[in-house]
Amino acid sequence: MNTEPLPVTGAWRPGDHPGRRQFFTFAEDRPFALDVGTTLSPITIAFETWGEPNADRSNAILICHAWTGDSHAAGRAGQGHPTPGWWEEMIGPGRPIDTDRFYVVCMNVLGGCQGSTGPASLHPSDALPYGSRFPVITIRDMVRTQERVMRHLNIPAWLSVIGGSMGGMQVLEWAITYPDRVRSIVPVATCLQATAQQIAWGAIGRKAIRLDPRWRGGDYYEAAPGDGPAEGLAIARQVAQVTFRSENVFTDRFGRELADQAEFGDRFDLWQRFEVERYLDYHGHKLAQRFDTNSYLLIGKAMDLHDVARNRGSLASAIARMTMPALVIAISTDMLYPPYQQRQIHAELTASGTPSTYVEIDSPHGHDAFLINFDQVGPPIRQFLAQIATDRPN
Amino acid sequence: MNTEPLPVTGAWRPGDHPGRRQFFTFAEDRPFALDVGTTLSPITIAFETWGEPNADRSNAILICHAWTGDSHAAGRAGQGHPTPGWWEEMIGPGRPIDTDRFYVVCMNVLGGCQGSTGPASLHPSDALPYGSRFPVITIRDMVRTQERVMRHLNIPAWLSVIGGSMGGMQVLEWAITYPDRVRSIVPVATCLQATAQQIAWGAIGRKAIRLDPRWRGGDYYEAAPGDGPAEGLAIARQVAQVTFRSENVFTDRFGRELADQAEFGDRFDLWQRFEVERYLDYHGHKLAQRFDTNSYLLIGKAMDLHDVARNRGSLASAIARMTMPALVIAISTDMLYPPYQQRQIHAELTASGTPSTYVEIDSPHGHDAFLINFDQVGPPIRQFLAQIATDRPN
Repeated sequence: MNTEPLPVTGAWRPGDHPGRRQFFTFAEDRPFALDVGTTLSPITIAFETWGEPNADRSNAILICHAWTGDSHAAGRAGQGHPTPGWWEEMIGPGRPIDTDRFYVVCMNVLGGCQGSTGPASLHPSDALPYGSRFPVITIRDMVRTQERVMRHLNIPAWLSVIGGSMGGMQVLEWAITYPDRVRSIVPVATCLQATAQQIAWGAIGRKAIRLDPRWRGGDYYEAAPGDGPAEGLAIARQVAQVTFRSENVFTDRFGRELADQAEFGDRFDLWQRFEVERYLDYHGHKLAQRFDTNSYLLIGKAMDLHDVARNRGSLASAIARMTMPALVIAISTDMLYPPYQQRQIHAELTASGTPSTYVEIDSPHGHDAFLINFDQVGPPIRQFLAQIATDRPN
Repeated sequence: MNTEPLPVTGAWRPGDHPGRRQFFTFAEDRPFALDVGTTLSPITIAFETWGEPNADRSNAILICHAWTGDSHAAGRAGQGHPTPGWWEEMIGPGRPIDTDRFYVVCMNVLGGCQGSTGPASLHPSDALPYGSRFPVITIRDMVRTQERVMRHLNIPAWLSVIGGSMGGMQVLEWAITYPDRVRSIVPVATCLQATAQQIAWGAIGRKAIRLDPRWRGGDYYEAAPGDGPAEGLAIARQVAQVTFRSENVFTDRFGRELADQAEFGDRFDLWQRFEVERYLDYHGHKLAQRFDTNSYLLIGKAMDLHDVARNRGSLASAIARMTMPALVIAISTDMLYPPYQQRQIHAELTASGTPSTYVEIDSPHGHDAFLINFDQVGPPIRQFLAQIATDRPN
C-alpha cells in the first residue's frame, strides 16, 4: 500500500481538515473479474479519509462521487487537487457529516482518472496506457472494488453510504450487494434504473467524442499537448451541463446576453456566442483540462448500464435486499433525475418494509443542487446520521 | 416565375388534394437587405398552395413550417417530397384548415434547402454553392421574403397565419411587422424570445457540426457522396430530437431495451446501443439524407436570434402592435417551449387588449405533439378559423 499525505498549500488555518490520501492496490495475483466478463489486474483505488475510526470501526461513512468527481470530497486545494473538495461544506469538523464523530472515506471510482485504475493507467503487459483496451465497467464493478478497500481498512460495516447522481447509483448497489455491511443509505438525485432519456443524453455525448478525430478510437495518449479530444469531450460535457442545471437558472443568469461583442460588435455572426454559450464553452474546456476523455466515456456508459434489477430476477427482489434505513433526497427542479424517480425509490423501499424518509430539496438549480444548496442538503443528512449513530446495536 | 405542378406518384385517389408547387424569384435587380446588414440577390421562395382564392382573396391562410420542415405541408408523397405533407391531417377538404373554404399557402423559408434560396443554392457570381458565403438570416428576414410572395399572389391580408415551433416565431413576427395584413394568428408551441436553455441546445448542435471534419467550414458541396457532414448533423439533430419528445414517451417506447444484440450478444460493449440510441441514430441519419447541414445551422441560429423585442423598444411595444385575434396553443409536456411560454404570449396579448384564447394540448408526446395529436390541435383551430371567417368585416 502506498500512503501519501495530502499536500496542503499554504499555512494551516483554523477549520482546515486535510484528508489523508491513500492508494490501495489489489488483484495483483488473482485477476479481478468484471461484469463484462473480462478481468483486470492489478487494480489501484485512490481514496481519501477524514476523521478517525473509533475502537470497533463502527463510525465509518462512505461518500460516493458523481461522474467527474474524485476522492477529494473535502479539504483545501492542493497538489493533485486544484480545487477544494466537491462536498467541502458537507464534510468536516462540526459539519453535517461530522469528522469529529465519523470516519469518512471517499474513493475515486474504478475507470476514473484521479488515482484509481482507468483507461489512462498503464497496461501491465506493455506499460502503455490502456486506451481502447480498457474494458467496459459497471456501477457494480465500482462497488466491488470499493469493498476490497473496505476490507483493507478493516471496516466491518459502513454506518452509512451517501452519494448523489452516479454516487447514488453506487449507494443503491452497495445496499443490494452487501446488505449486511451497510447500516444505512442516503441516495440523492439518482435512480434505480437509467431511463431512455438519460441514456439518450449520454449517447449523444459519446457520439460527439467519437466524432472528434483527435479521440483516435481511444488511443490518443501519445498525442502532442493540445492535440487530444478536448473538443469532443467539451461538447459531451455541455450536453450534460444543460441537464445538470435548470431552465430558470439559465434564464436568470444568462438571458439573451451576447458574448464576443469585442469581436463581432452588433453584427450577427453564425459563431458569435450568447453568454450561455460562453458559459458552456468554459465548463466544457475546464473539464477537458482536468478529466480523461476515455474515463468520461466509460463512466457515462456505466451509468447507462445502471439497473439494480439486472440479473436479480426483478426490481422487487433487488429492492427486498435493501433492509437498512434510507434517507432519499430529491431536488424539485432536477430534469435529469426528476423527483418522481426519488419518490419511486422511497415508495419501493417503503412497500418492502424498509424504513425510508423522503426529503425534497426546493431549489431552482436543478440536478446540481446537491452540490450547491448545502443549507437544505445538510440538515436532513445531519439529523439522519445522528439517528442512525444512536440506533446502532452495539 | 416558374410554376411546377406538384407531381403525384400513382393514380388519383378520393381525398387526394395535391397542392400546386410554385417558385417566385425576386430581388434580381434590387438586392434584398437582410437584418445582418448584407444583401441577397436574387432570392427564390418555393411555395405550395391548396384550395382556391375567393373573389377578394380574403380567404388566404399562411402556414409557417418549423426547423426542418418545408412548403409541403399537405399532400401525398411525390417527386421532391418523399413523404406526405407534414400537416397532412390538418389541411385538406373538410379538414381543420379546410381547403374547400380557404386558400392555403405554405412557403419554404429563406435559408432552407427545399426550393428556396439557401446555402446550397448557387451564388450568382460563380454559379457555385454559397456554402460558407451564405449570410446569417433572421426570422424577420424569412417573414419579409414571405411578404414579397404575398404581394406576388395579390393577397391583401392573411385571414390567419398559423405555425408551430419556429413556425410560431414567424407567426409572431408577421403579426408585429405587418399588423394590417394579418387578420388573426395561431402561434403554437413557440416563444416571444429564445431562452438561454433553447440557445444552449442549439449551440451544442452547432458545435457538433463544426467538429465534423467533413463539414469543411461549410464548403462541403464538392465532397464525394457519403463524404459530407452527415455525422455532425446527425448529432445536432439528436440533441434536438430529445428535446422534441418527452421523458415518459421515451420510457414507454424504449425503456432499457438493447439494440445490436446480433452483433454484441449479452456482452457489454461501449458501442452497443440501447434501443433509444438506435432510434436517435435513425432520426439523425434520416435528416442527414434529406436536409442540408448549412441550412440546419443557419435556421437554428435564426431561432436563437429570435426576439420579438429586438430594436422595438420593449417587449410591450412589440406586443402592442399585435391587435388581431390570437389562438395560442401550448403542449402540456413540451420541455423545449414549455406551456409557461405560451401562457406568457397569451397574457401579454390579453394585457394589451388583444382578444386571445389559450388552449393547452394534453399530450404525452412533448413538443412534437403539434405534429402528432391532430385530434386536439385540429378542433380549436377549426373553430377559431370559423369564427374569424365569420367576423371578417367585408
